[in-house]
Amino acid sequence: MTSSGKLRFHMFGEKLLSLLNGFLKTVDFAPMDFDTEDELQNGVRGDKPDTSGIGLFFNAESIAIIGASNDGTKISGQPFRYLKTLGYAGRVYAVNPTRAEVQGEKSYSSLADIPEPVELALIATPATRAEEAVREAAAHGVRVAVVFAGGFAETGDDGRQTEARICKLARDSGMRLLGPNCLGVMNFPTRQFLTFSQVPDESPLDGGCIAVISQSGAVGNYLLTRAMDTGLPIARWIATGNECEVTFADVLAHAVQDPEIRAVAGYFEGAKNGPALIEAFDLARRLRKPVVLLKVGTTELGAQAVSSHTDAIVGDDQVFDALFRQKGVCRASSIQEMLDMAAALHIGAIPRGDKLLITTISGGVGIITAEEAERRGARLPHLSEAAKIKLKERLPFISAQNPLDVTGQAVQDFSLIEDALRIGIEDTGADIIINFIGLLGRQHDAIEHYKAVLGSISAQYPDTVIITVAIFAPETTRELMKQGYIVYDDPTRAAIVAARLAGIANAYREPPHEDDLDLSSHALPRPNARPNERDGYEMLSRAGIAVPPSHIVNSADGAAAAFSDLGGPVVMKILSADIIHKTDIGGVRLNVSSADEAHSAYEDICRSVAEKTSAAPVGSILVMRQAAGFAETFIGTKLDPQLGPVVSVGLGGVLIEVLKDVAVRPAPVSIDEAGEMIDELRGRALLDGFRGEAPRDIDALADAVHRLSLVAAANADWLQSLEVNPFALTADGETSMALDCVVTLREQN
Amino acid sequence: MTSSGKLRFHMFGEKLLSLLNGFLKTVDFAPMDFDTEDELQNGVRGDKPDTSGIGLFFNAESIAIIGASNDGTKISGQPFRYLKTLGYAGRVYAVNPTRAEVQGEKSYSSLADIPEPVELALIATPATRAEEAVREAAAHGVRVAVVFAGGFAETGDDGRQTEARICKLARDSGMRLLGPNCLGVMNFPTRQFLTFSQVPDESPLDGGCIAVISQSGAVGNYLLTRAMDTGLPIARWIATGNECEVTFADVLAHAVQDPEIRAVAGYFEGAKNGPALIEAFDLARRLRKPVVLLKVGTTELGAQAVSSHTDAIVGDDQVFDALFRQKGVCRASSIQEMLDMAAALHIGAIPRGDKLLITTISGGVGIITAEEAERRGARLPHLSEAAKIKLKERLPFISAQNPLDVTGQAVQDFSLIEDALRIGIEDTGADIIINFIGLLGRQHDAIEHYKAVLGSISAQYPDTVIITVAIFAPETTRELMKQGYIVYDDPTRAAIVAARLAGIANAYREPPHEDDLDLSSHALPRPNARPNERDGYEMLSRAGIAVPPSHIVNSADGAAAAFSDLGGPVVMKILSADIIHKTDIGGVRLNVSSADEAHSAYEDICRSVAEKTSAAPVGSILVMRQAAGFAETFIGTKLDPQLGPVVSVGLGGVLIEVLKDVAVRPAPVSIDEAGEMIDELRGRALLDGFRGEAPRDIDALADAVHRLSLVAAANADWLQSLEVNPFALTADGETSMALDCVVTLREQN
Repeated sequence: MTSSGKLRFHMFGEKLLSLLNGFLKTVDFAPMDFDTEDELQNGVRGDKPDTSGIGLFFNAESIAIIGASNDGTKISGQPFRYLKTLGYAGRVYAVNPTRAEVQGEKSYSSLADIPEPVELALIATPATRAEEAVREAAAHGVRVAVVFAGGFAETGDDGRQTEARICKLARDSGMRLLGPNCLGVMNFPTRQFLTFSQVPDESPLDGGCIAVISQSGAVGNYLLTRAMDTGLPIARWIATGNECEVTFADVLAHAVQDPEIRAVAGYFEGAKNGPALIEAFDLARRLRKPVVLLKVGTTELGAQAVSSHTDAIVGDDQVFDALFRQKGVCRASSIQEMLDMAAALHIGAIPRGDKLLITTISGGVGIITAEEAERRGARLPHLSEAAKIKLKERLPFISAQNPLDVTGQAVQDFSLIEDALRIGIEDTGADIIINFIGLLGRQHDAIEHYKAVLGSISAQYPDTVIITVAIFAPETTRELMKQGYIVYDDPTRAAIVAARLAGIANAYREPPHEDDLDLSSHALPRPNARPNERDGYEMLSRAGIAVPPSHIVNSADGAAAAFSDLGGPVVMKILSADIIHKTDIGGVRLNVSSADEAHSAYEDICRSVAEKTSAAPVGSILVMRQAAGFAETFIGTKLDPQLGPVVSVGLGGVLIEVLKDVAVRPAPVSIDEAGEMIDELRGRALLDGFRGEAPRDIDALADAVHRLSLVAAANADWLQSLEVNPFALTADGETSMALDCVVTLREQN
Repeated sequence: MTSSGKLRFHMFGEKLLSLLNGFLKTVDFAPMDFDTEDELQNGVRGDKPDTSGIGLFFNAESIAIIGASNDGTKISGQPFRYLKTLGYAGRVYAVNPTRAEVQGEKSYSSLADIPEPVELALIATPATRAEEAVREAAAHGVRVAVVFAGGFAETGDDGRQTEARICKLARDSGMRLLGPNCLGVMNFPTRQFLTFSQVPDESPLDGGCIAVISQSGAVGNYLLTRAMDTGLPIARWIATGNECEVTFADVLAHAVQDPEIRAVAGYFEGAKNGPALIEAFDLARRLRKPVVLLKVGTTELGAQAVSSHTDAIVGDDQVFDALFRQKGVCRASSIQEMLDMAAALHIGAIPRGDKLLITTISGGVGIITAEEAERRGARLPHLSEAAKIKLKERLPFISAQNPLDVTGQAVQDFSLIEDALRIGIEDTGADIIINFIGLLGRQHDAIEHYKAVLGSISAQYPDTVIITVAIFAPETTRELMKQGYIVYDDPTRAAIVAARLAGIANAYREPPHEDDLDLSSHALPRPNARPNERDGYEMLSRAGIAVPPSHIVNSADGAAAAFSDLGGPVVMKILSADIIHKTDIGGVRLNVSSADEAHSAYEDICRSVAEKTSAAPVGSILVMRQAAGFAETFIGTKLDPQLGPVVSVGLGGVLIEVLKDVAVRPAPVSIDEAGEMIDELRGRALLDGFRGEAPRDIDALADAVHRLSLVAAANADWLQSLEVNPFALTADGETSMALDCVVTLREQN
């Protein structure tokens, strides 16, 4: 059984390539996502998020509602009612040619009749009349428009075409268009409610600093309502619907630049414009505005459902996951977790670092909390011996470790909790504390003591993020949240949030990767024909990745001469971009060890290939020096359909082929980041010298990944994939090299 | 780099053994857990749970509270107050020699003064007087006793000794003893509140059928309070504390036999008596009483904290995890999840099968729910084409798949939800449905419609478990729960519960493994000396596991003769139970291919070993036929410190050494179960014929695992471990065999 012996040669490239493709892709080798004919003609969207006009969706001075209904409870009637009655300070006009009045106010028969050019048009018509309304809005200089109606790209080809047309209408006039098929926008401070959600009627809370961006109106609305129920105010809310024009990336980039917004919570299914999304994440990170996303499409099933749910093409979830890690985006795994993170970020809880101290009045809860936090990657520093002695002096039965169990004795004496917290924070320099007081949370007199304890601790350690866990009365929870504490009733939720906050702290602490990787010197012209293996080696060489000495020969004599020149055992391979499985048809010969053998191998290969393929006769054969004594690794790039060029690295043999042990990142990556990728591999330890072998030169592998990623990023306009398997990694980086490669080109439109 | 070529030989056994030990154990190779000197003298506890008397903890007719305080708010005063004022129907006596009256009732100066022999003594004294009280109770024929006080084994050696003494007092008199260091017992229907929890004062709910068993009083109390807050009544509650006499297993076995109990929710840190716990799990499964456990000790940190928190010795969490799967025990990962499962089981929701149908009014929520359920192992059957057509006829924009999105149109027309459910259930035969109606849950008139829909569906499909997800008012939640629906506000929680219920259904559907595996024919006498490799082969042979032909030789001539007899290449190994790393000291020679070579190899090995060890000279050498052309696998058994003999299987090479890819189960296992273990291996596909190799004989491997597990189970009184590495697996089971083995003995007390 198994895998690769330590002296294995590079005969599995093609097979592995096909395996990997099956692994890495969901909708693979598809071109980037083009929505409209316009885009097809004019190329992809820009690589930057476009925030122009987005602010008007939240703060317009004049709004027209096209198709406003007289019935304020209908979808088409709610926004007008909200804007007129709930405190919006701008001017609102109902446009409805069938009525003189709408909800007691004058109704206009068209935009042209309104006495001023409005900034925002809310198109509340049925789908059948939306195109006309968009045309009217574009013609009248409306700056931003929202289309509620569904029935577009999500329903099939006809809808897709209509959607492409309304998008073109908007783009041609410079009007930003949100939707179609969307639940609209809510800005709570300015009461600009452009939605048919029922939330504006439910006395939404003030004082929020969280923006919610959702690719599903229903999910966003549910999240919003649950937030309000737990006392968490939301500042801005936007559902992006089909994203025919305004994308998630545009709205995200705007939100993180909004001075009133502290963090963004989003529900995300897929990127309409991957590069712009990446830019928006970079921006968020630079501005230290945490982004928490619930992204679906993690399972095959989910990916299926998503692609029928909206028009979003779901790419490889693994690539997104890597992107999130790369950019410090926090990935929530449930609505509850997103809410919990939003509640924490609402109070501004970005810790300085990742050190977590857990104190409880129950050993069991301490363990539950510590295990979950540790599983999620939080760091629980140990207590020093001195601190342990201090704690034992204060309370002999205390469990003096982290998690720290003050025991039930704290019930009678809250100063025990306070002292334990102080000693623990002082000793560990904790950036985050979780303090569990269980059922004490609902004893009225206990609460007053507890608030005093928290007040004293937070005054002394203002930078320490305090999470408190107990069964509190709802009003106590609200009061504690207002005072700047994070409050949950479940220790596991607290542990997850603590670990997530620690992750954000770590991401913000490290300098961002990449940035000024210079791509210009790596741009290559698009080849005219499909590149063969030798062309691939040339690309690698130009990128600074070593390849073995080789010759292309066209005769048996030439093969013999090439052997003599290379001196030593050689590999001979048929050279053709058309033949994928070279080994299967006798197109590869290993261990050729004399000129005579090279001579006859040439003839054997040509004969075998001619017999086994119907392709045109191939006479060119690559003669390469054969390498030995290396670890097999894999490096490759491909174009992700949503996110563009990505680079991956794995270990050869069983690990990649059976266990799919591969790390991936959007390209380009720095050498350091390539090193992090290698460290992610489950089989990483194999490179450190397994069973007495010499440790491999990890730096050489990281360097190759880095270089390959530059090639991918600089040539994404034509390069579909470039995979090297094996990249032969030796103990000495100098002799590491690519021993096989396959290049594919992007299909031209 | 890498691993094992396909013709590798068996030279890595010892190294791997040490690796595996580090992996498999937390507190390893320790004897079973003995608590008291008594046990040390009389052997381990019985292998069966002991339920005698446990019922009295919940239903005693007469109770004495020793150390009852006059102050009904004190720990020592609460139980008397509870029993006298909250409806307990039996007789209660306060024992307090310092007072004439306690809480207005007569106080007795000792048990002897009480006019009848009481069934139950609650010892509410401080730790210092607990031993005396236990002695008094034992002397007066008390049948069961509870000790509240802490300060025993959890505090160190002195406490451990006191605890051992009170345990002995109880055992010698046949009195069952709960605790010490425990929060006691609550039986809600009979109001038998033997606790200082404050819960009895909080108007606990009636009508429960869930038993809570907790090794932490605080965790159990927190769980109980949160259950009550969400409208979930609990029937019985017990905290087992230090478990000096009554163990978790005893209480569990009693609970699952209690006709009023439908399911058990437990917080669990470690087993005082593993075999009894396994029996209790078997009993639960036979009686179809689901057991949901939150078990800590999953991380190194957690294991550390547990061992200082109570006296429980934490074993290998992986073994527990395997045990839970083997026995159909549901493992919860948080208090919330345990509550959610308890709420589901409270209404009796054990589905017939594992088929899950998800219907929503939000595509996004459908995806979130489906992905989580799938990740947790639920099965979402596809809809047939006919059903899809029916659904599309009813509602053109419906997303006709599973998850099924009825879309927001259901807001206006609940019959859409009803029809979609009916078509979906009819088509898929769903055993469980999750129905999400989001914010509709809080619209009063909508709720009435919705209840009618649920009523109609549940009347037509009474066996289908219905989980509904929405933001309901608390009173609606309670009403729906009373009507037999499972209700959550978060779709992820619903998905987790659905998957867990599906898991229980699957566990209950399959016949239990093993049971009547006959161990008697596998019992062997304990060897007098440490067994060497040849002794191990003899054990394997007797168990029916093939070993290679071999000879033991004591001279160079003997080696040459052995070669001639075996005919063909041989392996020669120094034979000694004392030498662990044979290869390192030149004690192994591979590929010996002539009688002459065998002759000189004998001398070389003896010389090398003599030079490199200070051990007594070794002259015995094992000469074995050398095998080739096999897949390297690993099979082994060891004694888990809590659970007794366990068996494990893994693939050789990289997979086990670097990736720790190993499956484990309590022994014995049937052949079928051994097959399941093999299927769990991440590298399983390697055995099916990797890179053109012949598929390996999985049945032969399963058979060997099964046979080894019988040996382990039948000889657990003396066999510490028996590891075979490699077990050489060929394409043809007939030629598969053990190529190396190491046997260790249990230390004798």
